[in-house]
Amino acid sequence: MSEKVLRLPVKEYLEEIEVYEAGKPIELLVREYGVAPEDVVKLASNENPLGTSPLVKEAIIANAHRAHLYPDDSMYELKEALARKFGVEEEELIIGAGSDQVLSFVSQLLLEPGRSILTSRVSFAMYDIYASWYGADIVKSKSWRHLPEEFIPLIEEREPTIVYLCTPNNPTGDAMRVEDIEKIVESGNPEKTLFVIDGAYMEYAAAKNPEYAVSPSRFIERYPNLLYLGTFSKAYGLGGMRVGYGIARKELISALYKIRPPFNITTLSLAAALAALEDEAFVQESLKIHAQEIGRYEEFADRNGIEYIESSTNFISYLFGEDRESGKIARYLFERGVIIRDLSSYGINGVRITVGTPKQNDRLFEVLQEALS
Amino acid sequence: MSEKVLRLPVKEYLEEIEVYEAGKPIELLVREYGVAPEDVVKLASNENPLGTSPLVKEAIIANAHRAHLYPDDSMYELKEALARKFGVEEEELIIGAGSDQVLSFVSQLLLEPGRSILTSRVSFAMYDIYASWYGADIVKSKSWRHLPEEFIPLIEEREPTIVYLCTPNNPTGDAMRVEDIEKIVESGNPEKTLFVIDGAYMEYAAAKNPEYAVSPSRFIERYPNLLYLGTFSKAYGLGGMRVGYGIARKELISALYKIRPPFNITTLSLAAALAALEDEAFVQESLKIHAQEIGRYEEFADRNGIEYIESSTNFISYLFGEDRESGKIARYLFERGVIIRDLSSYGINGVRITVGTPKQNDRLFEVLQEALS
Repeated sequence: MSEKVLRLPVKEYLEEIEVYEAGKPIELLVREYGVAPEDVVKLASNENPLGTSPLVKEAIIANAHRAHLYPDDSMYELKEALARKFGVEEEELIIGAGSDQVLSFVSQLLLEPGRSILTSRVSFAMYDIYASWYGADIVKSKSWRHLPEEFIPLIEEREPTIVYLCTPNNPTGDAMRVEDIEKIVESGNPEKTLFVIDGAYMEYAAAKNPEYAVSPSRFIERYPNLLYLGTFSKAYGLGGMRVGYGIARKELISALYKIRPPFNITTLSLAAALAALEDEAFVQESLKIHAQEIGRYEEFADRNGIEYIESSTNFISYLFGEDRESGKIARYLFERGVIIRDLSSYGINGVRITVGTPKQNDRLFEVLQEALS
Repeated sequence: MSEKVLRLPVKEYLEEIEVYEAGKPIELLVREYGVAPEDVVKLASNENPLGTSPLVKEAIIANAHRAHLYPDDSMYELKEALARKFGVEEEELIIGAGSDQVLSFVSQLLLEPGRSILTSRVSFAMYDIYASWYGADIVKSKSWRHLPEEFIPLIEEREPTIVYLCTPNNPTGDAMRVEDIEKIVESGNPEKTLFVIDGAYMEYAAAKNPEYAVSPSRFIERYPNLLYLGTFSKAYGLGGMRVGYGIARKELISALYKIRPPFNITTLSLAAALAALEDEAFVQESLKIHAQEIGRYEEFADRNGIEYIESSTNFISYLFGEDRESGKIARYLFERGVIIRDLSSYGINGVRITVGTPKQNDRLFEVLQEALS
């Protein structure tokens, strides 16, 4: 009676989709390699190396006794605070379990067999995965940058249902100028194409260069076919709490609401996100330390003859020549308790490293130097 | 330039779907009616009135400093603990943000236009909502009970892709005998129909009558086309943390994994669920107090000439005659800080009341008595 094959009628286009490979958690290293948890240096998932704001910790502890109560599904307080921060109305906001969940909503709303998405050749893996969940085709630009000269002809020719502009881009780290974003968005037909600006790392890019700073309120005012995504997982230090948001015109937000499962944000995550918004000083401190430390990564690369992509995020991507293999280097580090992200599954012989605390970065340089020699 | 209508090409069958109406949160009452939070008695969402285990609170507080770290996406520890509890293998388990999310996975995997689901006439609203998200038809039994004589002919005739057996049923509270579940499951073609046993309130039913107690391991051993759902939101006191699970044969679980978004459970929710599993004494205490208090609800109903459905859950449904209107009664209570669930949207002139603590129940009886007089 042991049947290895599922006999139920799975939808045809779901048969062969791929599963997202997440960054390796500390727990795995502890379990499988016996590294002590306190010795693990995790620079693989672009978490905030400073942790989270003390106000967030206080809010979590103060709300622990409310774990049995369903969250306020209207998310009134958090939406009000976000609306104030971005100068938009509450009806122009939707909150997801990570901005990732808002991606899944928009994919579900718009994608079906016969439709397509357009992304940069190398970009956030979930765009493709969600497209495959709904049977849509995936069109990619030729290079891994978001270049108007590559995107605009593809938009005019293919009329994709969703165009993803990941800025700054993950896993490459480069950001788009606002004027280039505008050029690309204006090339699309508002009745056929939605543009998603994924600003998961926008805080880092905006701090680096004002020409990269996207204003969601200005963009949604100008364009009816635009969705801006932001997250609490990076600069705000809440990667474990799963809170992100989408900003768009009311008509699109209310359509997305139709396919939002109730209670999609936990009671403690709502409290944590609200507290995180109240501690802008923590974010500024994170950005300041990051700006100091990323310079060390550039110096290390230069010193060791490693190419890198100039980064506008909290990570940096090192690109190796033919003499080196990114998978082997990542593995060498992993076995010594330093977790980084191998990019070979993206077709890049390189690694993505989250910029950590000064001490974490010291350790990374030490072990990476060994691996290179 | 203000367009009120979305011009993007939303998928046709998503145009007219309904949004789930959640139980009203305490925050709304505090905001809109100025009731002090400590005076609110919320008996609307079937949360555990005892709150959550002290071990859970400790685990949350101990993990607050890890809010910035993405969760262990393998959920190794929680899956291991659940596998042990149910006597199944880890590959026979999937964890969702509430069992609700596992419902959404199975709907996404199997439903599309031209396919259908079968449910009892009155049952958990999300079955229909998820079916509508994928354009499937909804077939319902004639009565609100899960009767083999109603279900079997519909299964044979309509060959629904999913049959939902919600036992005990929400929002009615009645449970199915295991022998009736078996009769119904055996009437389906395993290549065409999946049976979902939704056991969100199973702990209460099993404590009341062993003939209601479903053994997931035994069911999945016998039937390849079966998925059992359980949750931490009710007896385990974690409604705000969003953790549930599905148990089925490996083939089905691995198909469901294809459409699980990464990091679907927060870091703190994983820690909380693991701690909740370690405090079985808390669950037993919850069941004991519940068994005492539900008798008071039956007495109150008898004394006031109110019909009720015999309950195998942590709530009870009162049914009113033509002289009363459930909406008015629920509203009267709401304005006095007592939140219960009006069932008129289910086509029932009645209310669903979560059995609370002795003190909460005192207050409910007091205000309901006023409303009835």
